[in-house]
Amino acid sequence: MAIITLITDFGTADGYVGAMKGVIARVAGTRPAPTVVDLAHDVPPGDIAHGAWVTATSTTEFPHGSIHVVVVDPGVGGKRRDVVVHARGRWYVGPDNGVFAYVAERCREAYAIENERFRAEHVSRTFHGRDVFARTAAAIAAGEDPATAGPRVELVGRLAWGPREREVGRVVHIDRFGNLITDLPEAEAEAGGAVLVASDVLPILGTYEDVAPGQLLAYIGSAGTVEVAVRDGRADRRLGVSRGALVMPCKADAARGPYR
Amino acid sequence: MAIITLITDFGTADGYVGAMKGVIARVAGTRPAPTVVDLAHDVPPGDIAHGAWVTATSTTEFPHGSIHVVVVDPGVGGKRRDVVVHARGRWYVGPDNGVFAYVAERCREAYAIENERFRAEHVSRTFHGRDVFARTAAAIAAGEDPATAGPRVELVGRLAWGPREREVGRVVHIDRFGNLITDLPEAEAEAGGAVLVASDVLPILGTYEDVAPGQLLAYIGSAGTVEVAVRDGRADRRLGVSRGALVMPCKADAARGPYR
Amino acid sequence: MAIITLITDFGTADGYVGAMKGVIARVAGTRPAPTVVDLAHDVPPGDIAHGAWVTATSTTEFPHGSIHVVVVDPGVGGKRRDVVVHARGRWYVGPDNGVFAYVAERCREAYAIENERFRAEHVSRTFHGRDVFARTAAAIAAGEDPATAGPRVELVGRLAWGPREREVGRVVHIDRFGNLITDLPEAEAEAGGAVLVASDVLPILGTYEDVAPGQLLAYIGSAGTVEVAVRDGRADRRLGVSRGALVMPCKADAARGPYR
Repeated sequence: MAIITLITDFGTADGYVGAMKGVIARVAGTRPAPTVVDLAHDVPPGDIAHGAWVTATSTTEFPHGSIHVVVVDPGVGGKRRDVVVHARGRWYVGPDNGVFAYVAERCREAYAIENERFRAEHVSRTFHGRDVFARTAAAIAAGEDPATAGPRVELVGRLAWGPREREVGRVVHIDRFGNLITDLPEAEAEAGGAVLVASDVLPILGTYEDVAPGQLLAYIGSAGTVEVAVRDGRADRRLGVSRGALVMPCKADAARGPYR
Repeated sequence: MAIITLITDFGTADGYVGAMKGVIARVAGTRPAPTVVDLAHDVPPGDIAHGAWVTATSTTEFPHGSIHVVVVDPGVGGKRRDVVVHARGRWYVGPDNGVFAYVAERCREAYAIENERFRAEHVSRTFHGRDVFARTAAAIAAGEDPATAGPRVELVGRLAWGPREREVGRVVHIDRFGNLITDLPEAEAEAGGAVLVASDVLPILGTYEDVAPGQLLAYIGSAGTVEVAVRDGRADRRLGVSRGALVMPCKADAARGPYR
Repeated sequence: MAIITLITDFGTADGYVGAMKGVIARVAGTRPAPTVVDLAHDVPPGDIAHGAWVTATSTTEFPHGSIHVVVVDPGVGGKRRDVVVHARGRWYVGPDNGVFAYVAERCREAYAIENERFRAEHVSRTFHGRDVFARTAAAIAAGEDPATAGPRVELVGRLAWGPREREVGRVVHIDRFGNLITDLPEAEAEAGGAVLVASDVLPILGTYEDVAPGQLLAYIGSAGTVEVAVRDGRADRRLGVSRGALVMPCKADAARGPYR
């Protein structure tokens, strides 16, 4: 049975997510309905980079062939394109505005969504989640070939920062707990044994309980990259660090230097 | 397979929504379970008008015969009636306190929920979502005839404002993005080409990108009515406008008058 | 079909819940997938007592044999054990840190999760929700015997307060509406007809509408215990009461004494 997941910035107070689910149920009709999975709906309004990270790190747990709809779309109805993307054995549906920036690194093919079988009869200017993306996902789930959605295109959506530079990482996501998630992979960080973030040198430890409550630590997070946290606290507030901040691998014994 | 959607003000921190889902699963027993769909759970606590709008605009995307449970119910256990409503080819289950005010305009029949096959054996005074509404939805999904739930009744629940007056609209909903959603239909608004809201005259444009970031605009929203937004911002805060505010269609060239 | 419910403090902005759902879908493979039910994801970060109460009061509505995953796990990767618990005819999966404190009162057997069939090949130090608990739930849903997860263990997780003392209750949960939910059972409270909370004596009434808007009341809540609320308001703020506060049954006519 087909799986469709939904990642949006629609929140859970309005009916927007509900309308998308309604479209999927209605398109399925008497066929077996796809399984619809709520992946994340409280992406901060219009925060494309947040949506991109959630998309990159959670959808690969799903089986090959699964369909992932991403609606963080402040430019809806404007110049950015509606696209369907084939990457990492899965299908991604949403606006080409950067939400697929990480996914696109492994993109094999992308198509504009123009064919009427993939769009509602009347498409509103401000709710493509309902009128285009839910429709497209439902059409793919029902067996339509995504390659017939429209002409093949190159993805143009980018985030504020480019591809990772060698030996320097960035904070690419701050999660609900205030943990700083970086794109610095385990292999590079562990060579030195520590990272420099803000003006702190933090040795890479194992898990939160390796420090006392209220203390900072770095560790290899569940995405396989360096993270920085405060045990039972928020690292973003402690360090005053925002998304995009640089994180550099360094020697653990730098921690014994004058920085402290 | 039957579809049951849930709209509540229970939030996603407590177990109330979970208890309702448990009841539905338990009533289904060994029969094929209905598909349960989370529609919206962060309706502001006790905000009947908010729940009414979400109900009106999202449930019609679902197929005919679908069942929609609405629990925004500050008067639970008191004088308002538990009802099941047939409207627009779908079934609505909840309190008769105004949450069905929009739906009721197209209501064909409504029944009080009194029959024991539609209620738990012991009904608590403060959680009819679990003890009555989830039960009733599960019973209908299992094939019970809703017309046997109890005596036929007239709906009495109303919102603070009455039916729409001619040629004047109101802000009927403010969404997560701070967009002002009105009940002024496209046909009436477009004749003049602009709307007056607060002390601003706003020409009706197509979508957010038609103005610069931070600017106000009016457009025809996804419900087919006029909406007012700030691109990449919040119109509710910019205009200091609350739900219930009046919105009037006017000539677009009024925008060139002394108001600006 | 197997049912797996999820209770977490992961919120709905990040991809953590999504990753757990992906694991469950992937483990199911071509077998019929279990029904995954979102029970509550906005448990306050790290708030074990909150998670424990939600677990205790919502999961028993689900049928026997259902599987309930609870991830409120600030000590992940540290000393607390990963466990699967059999209680009240259902299976509970999560950390042994107190989230099962109420459930454990009716616990029949508990097992550490050590067997590789119940864990991912590579288990991260900080995300057992994905790498252990979702896996274990999926394995049980697929027919694995939970008793083979690992050695039988005694649960050691406790909350800040012990088992209930005779004739005194506590506020054990504060819900989204600011209602104070106690562990004082109906039978004990109703004998006297009132409760003492903070410095107020409140007679036990039926439901919110039994008092005027803005007034305090006590009543028997949907968990069968005493609750304290303000009609159309928040009792936690009105009384300045936190979780753990004592609540004592008393005679209703004490309300006519000098306390008022």
